[in-house]
Amino acid sequence: MFHAMTVKQFELAAVERLMEHAEKLRTMDRRALLGQLQGNLVATLFYEPSTRTRLSFEAAVYRLGGQVVSAENARENSSSKKGETLADVFRVVGTYVDAIVIRHHSDAELDEAVSYSPVPVINAGAGSGEHPTQALLDVYTIWRELGRLENMTVAVLGDLKYGRTVHSLLRLLTRMQGMHVKLYHPPMLGLPAALLAELEQSSIEVTQCDSVADALKDADIVYQTRIQSERLEGFDEQCATDDYAIHVDHLLQLPAHARILHPLPRVGEIDPAIDPDLRAAYFRQAENGLYVRMALLDQILNGSLT
Amino acid sequence: MFHAMTVKQFELAAVERLMEHAEKLRTMDRRALLGQLQGNLVATLFYEPSTRTRLSFEAAVYRLGGQVVSAENARENSSSKKGETLADVFRVVGTYVDAIVIRHHSDAELDEAVSYSPVPVINAGAGSGEHPTQALLDVYTIWRELGRLENMTVAVLGDLKYGRTVHSLLRLLTRMQGMHVKLYHPPMLGLPAALLAELEQSSIEVTQCDSVADALKDADIVYQTRIQSERLEGFDEQCATDDYAIHVDHLLQLPAHARILHPLPRVGEIDPAIDPDLRAAYFRQAENGLYVRMALLDQILNGSLT
Amino acid sequence: MFHAMTVKQFELAAVERLMEHAEKLRTMDRRALLGQLQGNLVATLFYEPSTRTRLSFEAAVYRLGGQVVSAENARENSSSKKGETLADVFRVVGTYVDAIVIRHHSDAELDEAVSYSPVPVINAGAGSGEHPTQALLDVYTIWRELGRLENMTVAVLGDLKYGRTVHSLLRLLTRMQGMHVKLYHPPMLGLPAALLAELEQSSIEVTQCDSVADALKDADIVYQTRIQSERLEGFDEQCATDDYAIHVDHLLQLPAHARILHPLPRVGEIDPAIDPDLRAAYFRQAENGLYVRMALLDQILNGSLT
Repeated sequence: MFHAMTVKQFELAAVERLMEHAEKLRTMDRRALLGQLQGNLVATLFYEPSTRTRLSFEAAVYRLGGQVVSAENARENSSSKKGETLADVFRVVGTYVDAIVIRHHSDAELDEAVSYSPVPVINAGAGSGEHPTQALLDVYTIWRELGRLENMTVAVLGDLKYGRTVHSLLRLLTRMQGMHVKLYHPPMLGLPAALLAELEQSSIEVTQCDSVADALKDADIVYQTRIQSERLEGFDEQCATDDYAIHVDHLLQLPAHARILHPLPRVGEIDPAIDPDLRAAYFRQAENGLYVRMALLDQILNGSLT
Repeated sequence: MFHAMTVKQFELAAVERLMEHAEKLRTMDRRALLGQLQGNLVATLFYEPSTRTRLSFEAAVYRLGGQVVSAENARENSSSKKGETLADVFRVVGTYVDAIVIRHHSDAELDEAVSYSPVPVINAGAGSGEHPTQALLDVYTIWRELGRLENMTVAVLGDLKYGRTVHSLLRLLTRMQGMHVKLYHPPMLGLPAALLAELEQSSIEVTQCDSVADALKDADIVYQTRIQSERLEGFDEQCATDDYAIHVDHLLQLPAHARILHPLPRVGEIDPAIDPDLRAAYFRQAENGLYVRMALLDQILNGSLT
Repeated sequence: MFHAMTVKQFELAAVERLMEHAEKLRTMDRRALLGQLQGNLVATLFYEPSTRTRLSFEAAVYRLGGQVVSAENARENSSSKKGETLADVFRVVGTYVDAIVIRHHSDAELDEAVSYSPVPVINAGAGSGEHPTQALLDVYTIWRELGRLENMTVAVLGDLKYGRTVHSLLRLLTRMQGMHVKLYHPPMLGLPAALLAELEQSSIEVTQCDSVADALKDADIVYQTRIQSERLEGFDEQCATDDYAIHVDHLLQLPAHARILHPLPRVGEIDPAIDPDLRAAYFRQAENGLYVRMALLDQILNGSLT
């Protein structure tokens, strides 16, 4: 039984197989795709609402001909409110469906409960920890846009402390050769010490930057993230979020072949005036999420991942 | 790319094509229907919950063999709460699905954002403005019940100020010949000045009435609407909503061939004792909504509307 | 038109036909099953959220090849909030779909409104009254686990006053021969007088117990239920809920062939350490719910129940 819980489960070879499968699915005839998961039923249980991620997973199931049962606000509406354990939820819902996609507020609770599930579980974001399919689609986007997964400079901006997509992505980057990571973040929102240590023990070269312009210089990939203003309480003066935003004039510093990624949603951290620029890859990135999730669901439900 | 945003997009000929298509779909074999949208995926995004309208659209998709992903309370549960623009929502969700059905609280925001959608958008009710499929199903019901779309008297009762279904319907009536519209409403809930001016510039004859009985006299169609009591704050004495309700004894004033419509839900403005009367057409009207939405979705997704 | 509202509608012969149908469906080829409800559309309207019951019904529809439209929080999001009657909801939604599964907060309102529905309605739990499919799956589980529906001792523990699953189950037990029911409950949470009278007029032998150990002794079936702490306000001292919980050491009193059932969710009333014991049947019971609901939907929509 394969539960997709963390990017740590994905060696680079596994990521490459997944990406190749995603490429194959995106070029398949739409009606032919419907045969892949025909007769399969997937539950999407969201204990923290996330319309975008949920719709992306559900669209992936439907595109492959499967069906979905869904709880879009499971924390409020389900028996968890009555005190039921997540392990019991898995044991029951796992008798109804063939796989469970879950977003949960507690990493620890999810990790403990998943072993009780009689069907495969896919982590769609837990606590401030992992969000593995986001990292997989980020890497898939880098590969599609640049044509390689090695020898590149990746600038990561924004909230590096709480941003779970950044954590999962950086863990995947440690698998690659010749990587240089540049970090730029508000003073109190740097990488957790444990993750920074992981990076430093890897072959990745890590540089701290002191401005957006500095971070973008020579970058092949710019990974921008949202800073939640509530994370900055009491520090508004020192670190106005705008200091961490990408504006049109920053494009002058950015190499022509570079790409800007963002896990979305964005608020003010990427100026919409950048959107028409070919280097703005974030909407293509969102679409790639559909194909990565299709590939993962197909591999898990049709048994090529074990 | 055709976005169905307002009845202004529908010339009478287009309305007639839609109605004929609805008639065809309602008589088709149920299994044959399933082929129409096979492999198509539609998102229903409701920023204002509306179970009835949402279920009607979703049923329309399923009856045609398509699939649905849904956000029934998008304002609370989605990234819009984090400050994401609706334009970004369209750009992302539009990479997952083939069409988007949306109800939104702001006309202006919806109108501005729709041009960013990579897939067709259908307005399922915005602000206090348009609700085009409701008006289309209203006209379809008039046509089915009376057999014509000209030379008739339409009495419109209730909240004419905020009722978006009334506004969309009246705009469609201006396309028709030989129309007489009778209005009866609480003093502060008359038609917006701009819409009244539109009517007066059209060929429609407009009469203000001073009682339900007066409005129903000689009417071919009675279009009753709900008055939300919160709209009447401070005026409760002068205009008890019951003065605007239709009771069984009003049926005596109503011609035998006339029909009573209501967009539903109703609260007290139509006495349920009227329901068994053949002239009470509001539940047939609700069913017609299913077929009009099927026809519109089919035309949009199979490309005969452009 | 058959509305599945109460177990009173199910004679023992009807229960047996339903169980045999459930057995047949659970062994059918999964793809073959998809033909049973192809082209059928079911609405699940939950005025009280219940993720487990809703997902079970929806999974049942999908396993049979049907489709679902759903309102998971209809009380908050639907027009009922505006004052629409449930009768109107049935009349409208009943024009969109082929059957309606409903959970409602008011038995009286549901019972009154159901006659207005143009399509079959299945009660998925109403007020503190009936929850017929739960009772049917309970009986199905007893039959599968013990191989008979007669001559047995059933111990029922917990909240016997408000627990609607217990009420529905006990009503079904009155149809069986040679039954002995043992009851153990907090002082103020005994069976309603009317139901106790029904039992006493039946052929069932009823015994009151004064401990879990006493209840379990010689039981063939132990039916444990949750005690909602809010039901016990002011009585916390006399009746700690733990006095009504089943612990591992209770297993010593329980015959080897006996089975423990629970409608779930459980909180503390069954120690999870019991789960690996073969006599713990509650997760198999949950799975049985899927097959009973499939059988009921199939019988109702394909017309063998009338």
